[in-house]
Amino acid sequence: MYFDHSLCFHVPGRGRRRLDLDELLSGDARRMEPSPIRELAKRLRGSDIISLAGGQPSPEAFPLEEIRQVLLEFVGTLQPEVLQYGRTAGNEELREYAVRILSGKGIGASVENVVLCNGSQRGLDLVGRIVLDPGDVVVMEVPTYSGAIACFRNLQAELVGIAQDAEGMRTGDLERTVKKLQSAGKRVKLVYTIPTFQNPSGATMSAARRAELVEMARSAGLLILEDDPYSDLFFDEAFSPERLPPVAGIDPSRVAYLSTFSKVLAPGLRTAFMHGPPWLMRKIELAAQASDLSAGTLDQRFIVELCRSGVLTRSIEKARELYSSHCRALQDALTEFMPAAVTWSRPHGGLFMWVELPEKTDALKMLDEALETGVAYVPGSCFCVDGSGGNALRLCFAEQPPKSLRLGAAALATTLRLWDIKDKVPWAFGTCERKRE
Amino acid sequence: MYFDHSLCFHVPGRGRRRLDLDELLSGDARRMEPSPIRELAKRLRGSDIISLAGGQPSPEAFPLEEIRQVLLEFVGTLQPEVLQYGRTAGNEELREYAVRILSGKGIGASVENVVLCNGSQRGLDLVGRIVLDPGDVVVMEVPTYSGAIACFRNLQAELVGIAQDAEGMRTGDLERTVKKLQSAGKRVKLVYTIPTFQNPSGATMSAARRAELVEMARSAGLLILEDDPYSDLFFDEAFSPERLPPVAGIDPSRVAYLSTFSKVLAPGLRTAFMHGPPWLMRKIELAAQASDLSAGTLDQRFIVELCRSGVLTRSIEKARELYSSHCRALQDALTEFMPAAVTWSRPHGGLFMWVELPEKTDALKMLDEALETGVAYVPGSCFCVDGSGGNALRLCFAEQPPKSLRLGAAALATTLRLWDIKDKVPWAFGTCERKRE
Repeated sequence: MYFDHSLCFHVPGRGRRRLDLDELLSGDARRMEPSPIRELAKRLRGSDIISLAGGQPSPEAFPLEEIRQVLLEFVGTLQPEVLQYGRTAGNEELREYAVRILSGKGIGASVENVVLCNGSQRGLDLVGRIVLDPGDVVVMEVPTYSGAIACFRNLQAELVGIAQDAEGMRTGDLERTVKKLQSAGKRVKLVYTIPTFQNPSGATMSAARRAELVEMARSAGLLILEDDPYSDLFFDEAFSPERLPPVAGIDPSRVAYLSTFSKVLAPGLRTAFMHGPPWLMRKIELAAQASDLSAGTLDQRFIVELCRSGVLTRSIEKARELYSSHCRALQDALTEFMPAAVTWSRPHGGLFMWVELPEKTDALKMLDEALETGVAYVPGSCFCVDGSGGNALRLCFAEQPPKSLRLGAAALATTLRLWDIKDKVPWAFGTCERKRE
Repeated sequence: MYFDHSLCFHVPGRGRRRLDLDELLSGDARRMEPSPIRELAKRLRGSDIISLAGGQPSPEAFPLEEIRQVLLEFVGTLQPEVLQYGRTAGNEELREYAVRILSGKGIGASVENVVLCNGSQRGLDLVGRIVLDPGDVVVMEVPTYSGAIACFRNLQAELVGIAQDAEGMRTGDLERTVKKLQSAGKRVKLVYTIPTFQNPSGATMSAARRAELVEMARSAGLLILEDDPYSDLFFDEAFSPERLPPVAGIDPSRVAYLSTFSKVLAPGLRTAFMHGPPWLMRKIELAAQASDLSAGTLDQRFIVELCRSGVLTRSIEKARELYSSHCRALQDALTEFMPAAVTWSRPHGGLFMWVELPEKTDALKMLDEALETGVAYVPGSCFCVDGSGGNALRLCFAEQPPKSLRLGAAALATTLRLWDIKDKVPWAFGTCERKRE
């Protein structure tokens, strides 16, 4: 349909090598698949389905009135410089602010090694571009952030999954897997991890595992890519970044660390910050120079104002409180409504919860039924590079208010019950009414 | 310095394949070089050197007071939606506005085939990612935009130059070159062109050449990437997009068309728009999804407001008038000060002028001397993929006011005279004072 073949006279191997239109696509492009979450989001737009699928912060968490005040003041004295091109590495003041944030989390950072970019997703892509050739291996948690899977897959990397438990990525498994891959002659380059309030599992890597991960990366010659958008959103002081510092705090020279203002301020400002060893950051800057010049200069300046006036700090506190109560509400509702055969994670922060259904339940197939009933989730298989996750799903408790979370959980329980009858796998039927601890 | 080799025990070809830290870089990364223009900009920051080097619009062109008013009104009623994640393809209203802009230039566009992105540079990278595999050929004008050279070079493409004259890219040369490349079995994929008020030459491709280019791309099976940031900035109605439509106007199915709000509104808002055939735009959207999710949602909403309130239209008119007078001022000053052996282009719009010095003058070596004298330019070799341009340089007349343009031209003439004496190539000495037509 899309391709006009009428003019093609391509004779492979000999004569003039004229490409068909469909041959104009690169190897990267041929592999690209739509993000199931973004596709689902299109479907949900304008509907009254309760979405526990998205990964966006609650609009309630935005300190709207304060943002308005700060922006009004700033715009009133708007200077032409902020409308001009900015440095590729980003606004100097915001980079300094990022250094202060990093140091508050125990990461010894210097401003030369901080680069701002157009959202964390952009940061993942930049690190990928700098590190990965087709066929290189990225090891990553199972399950993990689907956007990272798509990003590295688009770069034609080989993705290898490492199981995790309540303490995060199993470092023993990691070591064994990497040894095996390296012995097979594979070029293992990156360990991608979301150690804190992981997306989608909600798990948090223990301090001991963090130390083991760094040790392992050092001895195996790997770079760690630490994706840390959620660590400020802890529900329990024991899980604060002060008490449980990021992996980059152990050895900043071994870690490309990535965080963002999206989850603690506003995703629409599209600004993330990255820190890493100089050999990496110099190349990151060059890659950014030739692939977008810089992130939005006006957005960066806005964020400087929001940091300076204390809005960021208050926004984080507000989000922490809000998401903590949302998380509780969803936990309670699941406990109340779910059949005994269903289990879920108990996150200590962040936005996400991982739900496991009995083994034979296909969460992807069940999604249509759930949408019919009025609730949306993301099927677990979207997050797993090893083909697992078929009987799991991710719930986001951040965006919806407690009432909707409760309704959503009820709709999910009903869906499960109906599916159970249709599916003739009577694991849940009859247990739905039973209250759980 | 950057690499810690102490832990490495890599034995190539046998045993466990552990990578040295410097082996962690991808092929793309190994090829990346700093942009000479961005490096020069760092050197100029805070100095009082008159820079004719940059490519940024004049801050005078920003309709600052109007922007302030529109933003104040908008921010005063700020809604949480604009702080949230946006669609990858971009804000719906702005995409519709882009369709209107495109149609005003004679390009039959549909909103599904418009994607907004974080600046034109990002657009170049996205098209490159979708189309280019390492070793694929991009043909491009000599000279051309250095950011495009860097972008495609980073993607490991082979870059082949096509000469241009006052009528733009020589389509006869293009046809012969492509035939030769294809006969040699090369995969020629893209023709990259800036047909209107080209950066850096200032040349504009004639209507006849535009038609030949499309014909040629059709018969040779190539995609045209038309980079069109300047066409609104014409100094003469005969060169308006209405009278001389973009290449995409001839056949939108054969052209990836790229334009931006950077040169007509403000670069800091980092928003460009792209239009192309559906098979390309679907993949562009997927590539953007996995590499930055979307451009800044707040920025896009700002631009919607600025379009709606007529600020964009007035801003374009203002910039046109301003740059036209700047261009005249620089032309006059060059005519007054330059030795007879120096020639320059006569742009009918845009931001740039191309200056050719006598053959033996090395503009790159002369740059230090020019900076000493107090003027900056970009050496021509930065824009040429065929090793030419050594005796040329690019001047930007947009940013500096007429007085500085005149001073800059005088400083350049003095530099040339001094260089001439030092260089012992007495082409210019004695002719500096002579006025030219």
